[in-house]
Amino acid sequence: MAKTKRQIHLGLFLQGAGHHVAGWRHPDAESGSENLDLLQRLAATAERAKFDLLFLADGLTSGSDAHPSMVARFEPLTLLSALAMSTTRLGLAATASTTYGEPFHIARVFASLDHLSRGRAGWNVVTTSYARTAANFGARHPEHDERYAIAEEFVDVVKGLWDSWDDDAFPKDKAAGVYADADKLNILDHKGKYFSVKGPLNASRPPQGHPVIIQAGSSGPGQDLAARNADIVFTAQQSIEEAQSFYKSQKERVAAHGRDVDSLAIMPGFLPVIGDTFAEARDKLALLDGWTDPTNAMPLLVERLGHDLSGYDLDGPLPELPVSDQLQSRAKLLTDLAKRENLTIRQLALRVAAGRGHHIILGTPVEIADRMQLWFEERAADGFNVMPPYFPGGLDDFCSKVVPILQERGLFRTEYEGTTLRDHLGITRTADRRGVA
Amino acid sequence: MAKTKRQIHLGLFLQGAGHHVAGWRHPDAESGSENLDLLQRLAATAERAKFDLLFLADGLTSGSDAHPSMVARFEPLTLLSALAMSTTRLGLAATASTTYGEPFHIARVFASLDHLSRGRAGWNVVTTSYARTAANFGARHPEHDERYAIAEEFVDVVKGLWDSWDDDAFPKDKAAGVYADADKLNILDHKGKYFSVKGPLNASRPPQGHPVIIQAGSSGPGQDLAARNADIVFTAQQSIEEAQSFYKSQKERVAAHGRDVDSLAIMPGFLPVIGDTFAEARDKLALLDGWTDPTNAMPLLVERLGHDLSGYDLDGPLPELPVSDQLQSRAKLLTDLAKRENLTIRQLALRVAAGRGHHIILGTPVEIADRMQLWFEERAADGFNVMPPYFPGGLDDFCSKVVPILQERGLFRTEYEGTTLRDHLGITRTADRRGVA
Ligand SMILES: Cc1cc2nc3c(=O)[nH]c(=O)nc-3n(C[C@H](O)[C@H](O)[C@H](O)COP(=O)(O)O)c2cc1C
Ligand SMILES: Cc1cc2nc3c(=O)[nH]c(=O)nc-3n(C[C@H](O)[C@H](O)[C@H](O)COP(=O)(O)O)c2cc1C
Repeated sequence: MAKTKRQIHLGLFLQGAGHHVAGWRHPDAESGSENLDLLQRLAATAERAKFDLLFLADGLTSGSDAHPSMVARFEPLTLLSALAMSTTRLGLAATASTTYGEPFHIARVFASLDHLSRGRAGWNVVTTSYARTAANFGARHPEHDERYAIAEEFVDVVKGLWDSWDDDAFPKDKAAGVYADADKLNILDHKGKYFSVKGPLNASRPPQGHPVIIQAGSSGPGQDLAARNADIVFTAQQSIEEAQSFYKSQKERVAAHGRDVDSLAIMPGFLPVIGDTFAEARDKLALLDGWTDPTNAMPLLVERLGHDLSGYDLDGPLPELPVSDQLQSRAKLLTDLAKRENLTIRQLALRVAAGRGHHIILGTPVEIADRMQLWFEERAADGFNVMPPYFPGGLDDFCSKVVPILQERGLFRTEYEGTTLRDHLGITRTADRRGVA
Repeated sequence: MAKTKRQIHLGLFLQGAGHHVAGWRHPDAESGSENLDLLQRLAATAERAKFDLLFLADGLTSGSDAHPSMVARFEPLTLLSALAMSTTRLGLAATASTTYGEPFHIARVFASLDHLSRGRAGWNVVTTSYARTAANFGARHPEHDERYAIAEEFVDVVKGLWDSWDDDAFPKDKAAGVYADADKLNILDHKGKYFSVKGPLNASRPPQGHPVIIQAGSSGPGQDLAARNADIVFTAQQSIEEAQSFYKSQKERVAAHGRDVDSLAIMPGFLPVIGDTFAEARDKLALLDGWTDPTNAMPLLVERLGHDLSGYDLDGPLPELPVSDQLQSRAKLLTDLAKRENLTIRQLALRVAAGRGHHIILGTPVEIADRMQLWFEERAADGFNVMPPYFPGGLDDFCSKVVPILQERGLFRTEYEGTTLRDHLGITRTADRRGVA
């Protein structure tokens, strides 16, 4: 593919009941996480706006104190398979954990989604932060760095399974009676520290070779996992300086692995609150914050800090906390934020309730486009994982008001050039075992 | 629901490359297992013919000697989610193993499919016969009866997880700010011999209460699992006498559990080879048998017997074999068949290549309808899992020629009366924990 002008990549981070914890209470909001009709309309909106992909987060726990978008929701792979039928270009990425799954199952479902969507699948590799997840699997929650060691081996096995059959392994020659060609079969026979997987996979090679790999942990081990394997990195960054320093660190690790730094797109979460004036945007966020139930906000904060806060004064400062085993980078981001802005625990909880640590931007469409351009041009980001505070209104506003500005400035595509998610990202199809791409 | 006239239930047993091992070589056959466009047309055909459901088998291994429908195929849950988008009434059932999976994941994907399809999901509970599966999961293959003990506990956990939230647990009351109602949450807290699963599930209660449960093992433990849990039993039966005796045994076990015997539908596999005359049907099967590669046929036989046959004369009789740990009922069915019809090993292998032990019926549409009526009225079956030898022709013939005869005779519906798979089966929605259905 000829090298074209660098452009912004856009993902729609889809959470049915909205990203702001009170987003579902907005008069324009439709609920939500299990409403297929709404989700189909949102996917169509993102595709009309030429987004690179739609992204589903995931978790393996629930409870009535959970974020409304997370307490009850579709399982991501089944939902994306359904959405693959009502879209034709939009990339479709889902989160799946390497701590509570089997490489054979994961390789299979993403291969299957890639076939069903004709090359639009992406896998967001996560290690599952929350220790309480273990109770749903009769398991022990491994500690932070071990979770990443498991993830490294897990991803290797999955990639190996995707290569089980060469691209032309199924001649289906009726006359000769050859359906599968035994010479084009690669037996993985993986025997490692955490997994032992023989193969082959019972799926032909995916249309993209390998579905797109996304990584969303920002600690050192998380960045290393991404440097070796990922095509996209999702991350939460509060300020442009923090984002630039993360960007630099992550790209250096990519280069150290001998990879082209442009083959990995760094996409921070971006929560846009859009008004016709700045004041209107500010009032809109204040309205949502005013609807926030503190009993919903506190568990979100506690979870992302990885530390219990009971006993502390909500209107006092955040205490000094040791490094969390659960989420190293997110916890650090929040403690840094509280210090920098002098926030009380209650104020920090509200901030987390609004954007879970992601960058919240208030303003007019032009102000929001300006901020995106700045982050993009100053190498704080290659694109953004857009997090509308409520649906469908929050996405409609972004697509009808902000996207056209980015397009006019030549910063974002006005038409898809290819059909696969790899095409949108400007990266090539993965070659099979014989090196054929 | 008022008790209506007993009618035949029909399932389409969908194997993309056909059920006959050489079906894909038929001039009218389109391949096959990873051809979404073909599978969508087949689902539409079954729905136009008012089938109760479409059924996907599954396995967790592959190899170039495998059946062409099994060597490479879509993962069932992703495929059914896609097919749910192009159908509106057809039940959608998929196989998932209790030996190589986690109850939390399985509960989730079937709940999700039930939501996406608005109440049309079914789970075929299997214990995975083939020991070589273990090598893809770094596991030990448990022995036959232990696999069923695991399955019993697995199904209990899945049903418990489906009941995590009462039916009205999500008021989503914007004014009061109540998204989830904590009083309507049921924590499972299961601690058993094989599984320890806390819950709750991160999905609201499925539209059917519980998705339909199917069971497909016919040994004693298999029948017991079905008697306690299943709404449908799939089975392989060679003769009407065998089928009647299985039917009687299975229904007695249902009654012993205090259940209405009519709440469980017994559906043997049925492979129809249709001709305008009997001779034409016979020639069609001979053509397919003639295309059968013996190297493809022998592994299928060996697998279903659970015993190696190397060293035996292919043109001699089947030797006496001890009980198989892998598939007790299927192995017995095949050894009985070989004895009854005096088949050589080669002949038996061909029979397995054609229908894998299921009943093969040759004839005109009227002859096939007669046989179905006989089995149905003589209580050998409540319905049939229809296995076209090749696609799409084999299904088109059945739907355009056999189904209308069954309808004229009042043996099969001419229109759907309800919208869910439970509606088609004439069984009620499962009540939630408070007993509300
Ligand atoms: C945009 C974004 C989305 C994420 N989505 C998920 C998710 O869906 N499920 C999950 O378990 N973790 C998710 N994470 C968390 C990370 O995968 C990771 O576990 C966490 O950030 C802690 O890793 P670290 O210590 O390397 O930062 C997400 C992170 C980001 C930045
Ligand atoms: C119609 C039918 C379909 C089946 N489909 C599957 C399947 O898809 N995957 C599988 O592992 N076993 C499948 N089985 C096998 C059974 O689940 C079971 O493992 C096998 O029959 C041995 O159990 P038994 O000893 O109780 O007979 C199927 C059986 C029947 C009758």
